[in-house]
Amino acid sequence: MSEIPYKIYLEESEMPKAWYNLRADMINKPAPLINPGTKEPVTLEELSHVFCTELAKQELNDTDAYIEIPEEIRNFYKMYRPSPVVRAYCLEKKLGTPAKIYYKFEGNNTSGSHKLNSAIAQAYYAKKQGLKGVTTETGAGQWGTALSMACAYLDLDCQVYMVKCSYEQKPFRREVMRTYGAKVTPSPSNTTNVGREILAKFHDTTGSLGCAISEAVEAATTQEGYRYVLGSVLSQVLLHQTVIGLEAKTALEKYGVSPDIIIGCAGGGSNLGGLISPFMGEKIKGIKDYRIIAVEPASCPSFTRGKYVYDFCDTGHVCPQAKMYTLGSEFMPSAIHAGGLRYHGMSTILSQLYDDKLMEAVAVKQTEVFEAARYFAQVEGILPAPESSHAIKAAIDEAKKCKETGEAKTILFGLTGTGYFDMKAYEAFNDGTMDDYIPTDDEIPVLRG
Amino acid sequence: MSEIPYKIYLEESEMPKAWYNLRADMINKPAPLINPGTKEPVTLEELSHVFCTELAKQELNDTDAYIEIPEEIRNFYKMYRPSPVVRAYCLEKKLGTPAKIYYKFEGNNTSGSHKLNSAIAQAYYAKKQGLKGVTTETGAGQWGTALSMACAYLDLDCQVYMVKCSYEQKPFRREVMRTYGAKVTPSPSNTTNVGREILAKFHDTTGSLGCAISEAVEAATTQEGYRYVLGSVLSQVLLHQTVIGLEAKTALEKYGVSPDIIIGCAGGGSNLGGLISPFMGEKIKGIKDYRIIAVEPASCPSFTRGKYVYDFCDTGHVCPQAKMYTLGSEFMPSAIHAGGLRYHGMSTILSQLYDDKLMEAVAVKQTEVFEAARYFAQVEGILPAPESSHAIKAAIDEAKKCKETGEAKTILFGLTGTGYFDMKAYEAFNDGTMDDYIPTDDEIPVLRG
Repeated sequence: MSEIPYKIYLEESEMPKAWYNLRADMINKPAPLINPGTKEPVTLEELSHVFCTELAKQELNDTDAYIEIPEEIRNFYKMYRPSPVVRAYCLEKKLGTPAKIYYKFEGNNTSGSHKLNSAIAQAYYAKKQGLKGVTTETGAGQWGTALSMACAYLDLDCQVYMVKCSYEQKPFRREVMRTYGAKVTPSPSNTTNVGREILAKFHDTTGSLGCAISEAVEAATTQEGYRYVLGSVLSQVLLHQTVIGLEAKTALEKYGVSPDIIIGCAGGGSNLGGLISPFMGEKIKGIKDYRIIAVEPASCPSFTRGKYVYDFCDTGHVCPQAKMYTLGSEFMPSAIHAGGLRYHGMSTILSQLYDDKLMEAVAVKQTEVFEAARYFAQVEGILPAPESSHAIKAAIDEAKKCKETGEAKTILFGLTGTGYFDMKAYEAFNDGTMDDYIPTDDEIPVLRG
Repeated sequence: MSEIPYKIYLEESEMPKAWYNLRADMINKPAPLINPGTKEPVTLEELSHVFCTELAKQELNDTDAYIEIPEEIRNFYKMYRPSPVVRAYCLEKKLGTPAKIYYKFEGNNTSGSHKLNSAIAQAYYAKKQGLKGVTTETGAGQWGTALSMACAYLDLDCQVYMVKCSYEQKPFRREVMRTYGAKVTPSPSNTTNVGREILAKFHDTTGSLGCAISEAVEAATTQEGYRYVLGSVLSQVLLHQTVIGLEAKTALEKYGVSPDIIIGCAGGGSNLGGLISPFMGEKIKGIKDYRIIAVEPASCPSFTRGKYVYDFCDTGHVCPQAKMYTLGSEFMPSAIHAGGLRYHGMSTILSQLYDDKLMEAVAVKQTEVFEAARYFAQVEGILPAPESSHAIKAAIDEAKKCKETGEAKTILFGLTGTGYFDMKAYEAFNDGTMDDYIPTDDEIPVLRG
């Protein structure tokens, strides 16, 4: 076996030709989405009013283990993929751990994260259906950036409702989207009924993700030739993100490596689901008992403090209900800097796996996450996104345990993105003004009973 | 011959083990640096007061064609290199050109540019000499970021003088440097004698690389255990940057490809020099007559409007004099957004090559550069740095000429970095408020006679 390089890149010919649909191999399937009006599982027809038909089909598909990646999407993937699996030699040395640490790095594209993997897929199906454009919401801005890149490539109109406070606080994110030709509207806005209603009621509001979702859905369903797209939570998004795990598994196997522990951050669950899917499939089939860890912020602890119940996916209650680990759709997360993890619920797939004890979860505090982020940046060179840094923190903790026990475990974690647009957060950390807010039980709607 | 992939990555074992010192093969050597006091060529001893001794030796070396890259530096390179040579299939298709376009992409590291290639080398020699730290200047901030990364890795103190207009346009750049532990001061500042003098003379100045160099040199020579390091212009920097050209040449040769035209942006000349060196070596030896084009901003046109004379490298006149294409060391460039190209002079190596007509130069206007940048971002996905976009503009122009003539030329250009910290500039462009300032002859000191 040849020496393991710092970075393992697959050949283009080794890139996945199909996404892996873990649901087909799950023994306990995720509970279906429910139409809150009829209390019945949502139908393909109902979903197709909001989503492209092909994506609605993917959302409901729990039988086909592999779904072919169309050639056009595979060609787009070649512009920024395969992404490397990096052997963290420098981190191992600095920690003095016998553990072998690998990370799958998804940050080397302009969206700065893994979001592009699903954005191009969703934009592609929209284009193929002959649509004029898509609408979406964005908070931190990575998803909006990814979608605007995909739409620019396919010459599709892209309308992004950006939470007003983010629009004002992250002008550079907005500018990247504009550079890719997206129309970015601060939400709430005067362009939708729901936006006008909210503005009339609370005219000083700085907006919320829930409101932005409502506006984006309204914009999609009231304009001819538009559909709504979403960057996480949905099963279709996890499906597209399996390119992460499939590439990682193939790359490691080339060097005869198999991870003992797999770690990822979890907001809505798209990157974690994508990374772990092929490994989880083997775990379910009894091939290998991987230890899988979801890392979430202590300020938004869906897995570790939420309940596994049916809940709305959005604050405005315009979307179907999903059975998931949730803090309650009215939960108002504190303004933590890992914007991509500020979501009250969790992917239905991951929720079922967690309930089946096929994976673990840990909650970590913001300042210890940034401590890990800065440490990693100085040792491994890459400046990580706050979201990704949750996984770094947990990986370092596991590597330290190995140092104590002397076990040379193999750790794989997902480094989902870069922090170039998060320097205000780093500034707060560097200045020592960052706090560690943890919600009380009273602030978590599902715990209020 | 196998099909050419979108991205050509070398194996780690194929990475260069030595830098290529083009000067050894140049028939007309660059004119020596001159001590302005004695009017004699500077000696190793004189240079060693300012630079690490090993780097001073490299600065004066015009006899050894190859200089071994120490193993520690090669290991650091493996953290972010080899960088890919990308076949711009999407750009070719969009342009409808028969030209084959390749770019060597140096932006996939946290410094966002090629600067890290020399930063780690200079920091390594400083550490090896037992120094406490280094001082430097930075324009756009890419060099300062790169140096702070290298210093964090080697546990060296890092003091950065940042050109004031960049410091103000790019507060987040400063924060990246701080995250890597660097001390960042806007220049001109009150912390040095030369800074105070420049402020007294031009108290509204937005600064320039020339001013910041003077301050950094003063800081290095007045503190015990410090030396000055520079991110461009110097022959040692071009030497380290030859990893770009060496990797690019090896990668292309693996697929039987040889460029007809090689294009790079030119500020002080480090990326251009690094990219072209191995090709220029062959041109000098008569192996192949590559066409080589330097692209500079019309607002700071050292090659196209400057004169080839001895001049100071810095505004404060604390450095040796170099024979180079220069606008005059008192030239105050307008606040163009490509901060990395705001330098009054040019590498002595490139100046000699240009004077020998071994390479061409073109000057391009700011708005047409950003037009090319946006076009490229939408087609190829990567959001380019303004500096790099000068090369994109020229490459697109050459590809369009090929479309007119029907020639299928092979174009290689250097995509030196990403524009994530340049969104204020993109905003001005997107808003249509960007201008195209071109200095009058009167504003160019060497033309005032």
